[in-house]
Amino acid sequence: MPENKTTIFPKGERAPANYFTGTAWIKLLVPNDGVLNCQIGNVVFEPGARNNWHKHAGGQLLIATEGTGYYQEKGKPIQLLRKGDVVNIPPDIEHWHGASPDSEFTHIAINPNTQKGIVEWLQPVTDEEYEQ
Amino acid sequence: MPENKTTIFPKGERAPANYFTGTAWIKLLVPNDGVLNCQIGNVVFEPGARNNWHKHAGGQLLIATEGTGYYQEKGKPIQLLRKGDVVNIPPDIEHWHGASPDSEFTHIAINPNTQKGIVEWLQPVTDEEYEQ
Repeated sequence: MPENKTTIFPKGERAPANYFTGTAWIKLLVPNDGVLNCQIGNVVFEPGARNNWHKHAGGQLLIATEGTGYYQEKGKPIQLLRKGDVVNIPPDIEHWHGASPDSEFTHIAINPNTQKGIVEWLQPVTDEEYEQ
Repeated sequence: MPENKTTIFPKGERAPANYFTGTAWIKLLVPNDGVLNCQIGNVVFEPGARNNWHKHAGGQLLIATEGTGYYQEKGKPIQLLRKGDVVNIPPDIEHWHGASPDSEFTHIAINPNTQKGIVEWLQPVTDEEYEQ
């Protein structure tokens, strides 16, 4: 690790096991409120970790900041994410995100339009789905 | 500069001189659309650079990612911003942001609720205002 390598945010809290496979950390950056209607969090996924399938009634934007990650929408191939990549996730699209098997991965997750809902959690991403 | 220091995003385009004092660079990360109602850009300010006074009908969120910057709301003292700081700017609040005099500064700017409007530009920040 290079001497000047410092992450932008502290790691935060352990992500809830009900909605994640493996170990991930969430730092809430902007709590939801009824004025900005926008919740923002930073998520660090350890290698192999990912969240469950889920969807957002208001959509979501992901900004990859470190490492190599995966993003998949239901019925489509897994996309590789690298530092600087941005993902635009339309409302109500089932998807998941996480680290690749051999790299930690960090992204900022932005949930706009929270007046329509924030997140609906679904089933875990199986090892078979993850390894495709 | 340490060997492994790499920015997250490319610098982008020169910020428009009509709305900025000094040199700044804007990389549009998420263009506005009528579905996510959220425009996101990365801004790099060279030392001393800042944008004009302005306001957002839908509010704004700033995430500082590198360097040392300034943020000021009309009638309040200048706040110092460092890597990892987050600023929550309510709708219709006059404000400006930029680099400190001796450091480059980079932030991600998130404009939610763009269905209400994105930005209204006002007068430049004078040297007297900036040096307070």
